[in-house]
Amino acid sequence: MDFSSKLLENAVNEVSRLPGIGKRTALRLVLHLLKQPKENTKYLADAILQLRNDVKSCKKCHNISDTILCDICSNPNRKEELVCVVEDIRDVMAIENTGQFRGLYHVLGGKISPIEGVGPQNLNIESLVDKVKSGEIKELIFALSSTMEGDTTNFYIYKQIEKYNITTSTIARGISVGDELEYADEVTLGRSIINRIPFENSLRQ
Amino acid sequence: MDFSSKLLENAVNEVSRLPGIGKRTALRLVLHLLKQPKENTKYLADAILQLRNDVKSCKKCHNISDTILCDICSNPNRKEELVCVVEDIRDVMAIENTGQFRGLYHVLGGKISPIEGVGPQNLNIESLVDKVKSGEIKELIFALSSTMEGDTTNFYIYKQIEKYNITTSTIARGISVGDELEYADEVTLGRSIINRIPFENSLRQ
Ligand SMILES: [Zn+2]
Ligand SMILES: [Zn+2]
Repeated sequence: MDFSSKLLENAVNEVSRLPGIGKRTALRLVLHLLKQPKENTKYLADAILQLRNDVKSCKKCHNISDTILCDICSNPNRKEELVCVVEDIRDVMAIENTGQFRGLYHVLGGKISPIEGVGPQNLNIESLVDKVKSGEIKELIFALSSTMEGDTTNFYIYKQIEKYNITTSTIARGISVGDELEYADEVTLGRSIINRIPFENSLRQ
Repeated sequence: MDFSSKLLENAVNEVSRLPGIGKRTALRLVLHLLKQPKENTKYLADAILQLRNDVKSCKKCHNISDTILCDICSNPNRKEELVCVVEDIRDVMAIENTGQFRGLYHVLGGKISPIEGVGPQNLNIESLVDKVKSGEIKELIFALSSTMEGDTTNFYIYKQIEKYNITTSTIARGISVGDELEYADEVTLGRSIINRIPFENSLRQ
């Protein structure tokens, strides 16, 4: 692409570094900004800068939060002893949308994936094991997507905590094997939490 | 969507105001930024802000430019008396890519579209008519897309300038080079038959 402006070229290059955004799409987005009032570009730039600079990770569950403890962890009506282990904050949003879960979450920040160079030490696993050790968790629900990486991660965590006396379960496989959790419909996802099965049982399937 | 963070919600909302970007995509893009180094978000924000605040519209052709006159208009090797009328700077980029045009451009900034509330007064038409009046243009090539709005715009401009003694043309419509005839749409195929060129001419291309 030949640009008549270095400023335009630079903006297109930066926007096209976002995942799934090619040069053509980036150009279309950037030209859209030029047609809008200047304030709109400022709002957009400010919003992403503020998020990147000021957002926190909840000290307890690693959910994205504006405060040290997220709204869920600081809600006295949630059952602290019931913890749902998820990969990503999008999964927290998806499960919250079902309205079926009244416990807390633990956001791992990914799945174990040797191919992508993600090992247990890159995920929020140690803090989860510590919570189990300390006795504050009575039941752990594994809600990772049912892929090879998800299963590996579940099993890795399970081996770390099986000696402690807690109940473990996985969400029911109402969700198709291989599907991403965030795209599941609310009803299916809600039921799969209600019908969770003991983790040991999931190993036999 | 229920967000655990106002900062996150705000960033997703701003990103999803871009055309073709839904809330889910915006969330994916924003979470990507959170996984990248802080500098990357700063580069992105700076690039779009600088573009929006500092970019200029070429005084002569209304192309996007970092200087008062764009690179094309200030190039002494381009034929000033041959002007190609286009809708958008993307069309300038597309035609420049062909390497076939050595004249200048005139960027209208859109097409006349009563449905979208775009009238002649919203486009760079007056400055084009002024250039024709002043005698600096000898030939005008209309290169708008061949839609109802494109044809309306062409015709509107044509009526404004027909009294001045200049040559006007439109780019040839036809079957794309390399395309199978059977897959061409009827209108394009029809026009390519009506506007057939002497066979000898096609040999020279
Ligand atoms: Zn939390
Ligand atoms: Zn120019």
